[in-house]
Amino acid sequence: MNKKELVAGIDIGGTKTALGLIDQQGKIYASTHFSTEDFPNVEDYVEELSNQIEVLFGAFKKDYSLIGIGIGAPNGNFYHGAIEHAPNLAWKGIIPLADMVSKRVNHHVLLTNDAKAAAIGEMIFGGAKGMKNFIEVTVGTGLGSGFVANGELIYGNYGLAGELGHVNVIRDGRLCSCGRKGCLEAYVSKRGMIQTYQELSNQNSNDVSPATIADLANKSDKIALKTFDETGKILGQTLADIVCITEPEAIFIFGGIALAGDLLLNPIRHYMELNLHHIYKGKVKIIPSALPDNTAAILGAAALIWNNG
Amino acid sequence: MNKKELVAGIDIGGTKTALGLIDQQGKIYASTHFSTEDFPNVEDYVEELSNQIEVLFGAFKKDYSLIGIGIGAPNGNFYHGAIEHAPNLAWKGIIPLADMVSKRVNHHVLLTNDAKAAAIGEMIFGGAKGMKNFIEVTVGTGLGSGFVANGELIYGNYGLAGELGHVNVIRDGRLCSCGRKGCLEAYVSKRGMIQTYQELSNQNSNDVSPATIADLANKSDKIALKTFDETGKILGQTLADIVCITEPEAIFIFGGIALAGDLLLNPIRHYMELNLHHIYKGKVKIIPSALPDNTAAILGAAALIWNNG
Repeated sequence: MNKKELVAGIDIGGTKTALGLIDQQGKIYASTHFSTEDFPNVEDYVEELSNQIEVLFGAFKKDYSLIGIGIGAPNGNFYHGAIEHAPNLAWKGIIPLADMVSKRVNHHVLLTNDAKAAAIGEMIFGGAKGMKNFIEVTVGTGLGSGFVANGELIYGNYGLAGELGHVNVIRDGRLCSCGRKGCLEAYVSKRGMIQTYQELSNQNSNDVSPATIADLANKSDKIALKTFDETGKILGQTLADIVCITEPEAIFIFGGIALAGDLLLNPIRHYMELNLHHIYKGKVKIIPSALPDNTAAILGAAALIWNNG
Repeated sequence: MNKKELVAGIDIGGTKTALGLIDQQGKIYASTHFSTEDFPNVEDYVEELSNQIEVLFGAFKKDYSLIGIGIGAPNGNFYHGAIEHAPNLAWKGIIPLADMVSKRVNHHVLLTNDAKAAAIGEMIFGGAKGMKNFIEVTVGTGLGSGFVANGELIYGNYGLAGELGHVNVIRDGRLCSCGRKGCLEAYVSKRGMIQTYQELSNQNSNDVSPATIADLANKSDKIALKTFDETGKILGQTLADIVCITEPEAIFIFGGIALAGDLLLNPIRHYMELNLHHIYKGKVKIIPSALPDNTAAILGAAALIWNNG
């Protein structure tokens, strides 16, 4: 009898690592998590991660086979299977994590960054099923993206494609975390939204967050509404340009800030449409991600294996 | 004995149609051209084009087989095989030219726009041989582009991808031929360069052209040099953003204005590099197209067939 196949999906975050066992339909059989920060030494981390995978899969060994491990990680490079210079992780330089895990657990391992994993997750399990051309935009602490064209994720020549957050939107604008000025991420991200709210309200209070701004906007607070309008305007204008490049069927908005729903999506739709070249008008949908927020990351990581085999 | 295979490559321009018979190595066996403008009725044009193909191929019929016809045309849509609302052609609306020609000559016909044909030509016969990720930018009357990722041209959901000329570069900037303001094409194109020269020199003389500006620049004329610098700056800044999306190995610059060579390419290189996110610095080449200027269009059109079969 052929054993049913499962994949381990792993999401590495700066504070937490989540992992799950996932079948080809996106059903999660088991999941767990542990602290990333507890392992400042990457060899120790690989040992812990491998043990966690083995323990998780142990209960399913009899009837299932583990066909691979997909990892989503900050600054993950698909071509190299490596985490490269991730600012929010303790492991510095280039970490060939896919190889390290593969050698330890003797399974096929693929690794990419969080946003590309989300794009593949959207294609395999989410709202982009059957789509050949779409864009996944992840808005949270930063702004990431994954571009799919002709049914394939665009990795680029060195695996560095999809950095939509670092497209210039205002010459000599806000300082970005990358050291340059005026990047999209400096406006459309957690920090960007907070800064916009502070600028509009002339206050520097540190107790604002995208969630509190959304609460205020839902109570018709003008500054909060204006913050969403400005944020959506900058993203919508940028997407109108990006449509000229890959002409997607849809653009999925994913991540913490996207939970604000139409508060954010409606301004994006309005300003994208307003700025689109006439040949694209009415043709590109802005859609919230269909991936469940709390399990999207491990689903996306698992989708890497289901997509690439 | 198997007959050697040839393809007919056809370049449809507003004034002239060029056609040639081309083998898989890009060798041109025969070529000819006729006036597009002489045929305001598209049925008459199809008849003329078909006759020209048959006459051209007649001399090779004994030893060669014609395996297909590739057409590059303004506003050509690959998915539909149609010329759609081309402003510079007499045939209005949507012209299903690939089907019309195919029915008349009983051969396989593929059609796309000029810039996408140039990109495929670059990949099959030119400087992008063996490259999986590159961009072709065609700068002439307008600014067109073809994006190749994962070894495939990006057509987009409706065949409308690659309109780099209509990315916004200056909010509320110059009026573009598309009716919007601040598009790249309004600055980087024949008209755009002339306007920049006129603005910098405070004169409206109509006897300037990119070629005369290049002549002046080669004689160290400051305004002409400044014109190339400004033109290259706007294109270089834009390409620095575009690299974030598809991360190409190289960007090829093609077309009439690209003949100015390093006068244009050096400013593009300088400003692109200056504006690149640090992860891309030193990694993306700006290269003049390796397609011969006078036969590039028919080579590109023929490459459509050699690429897609």
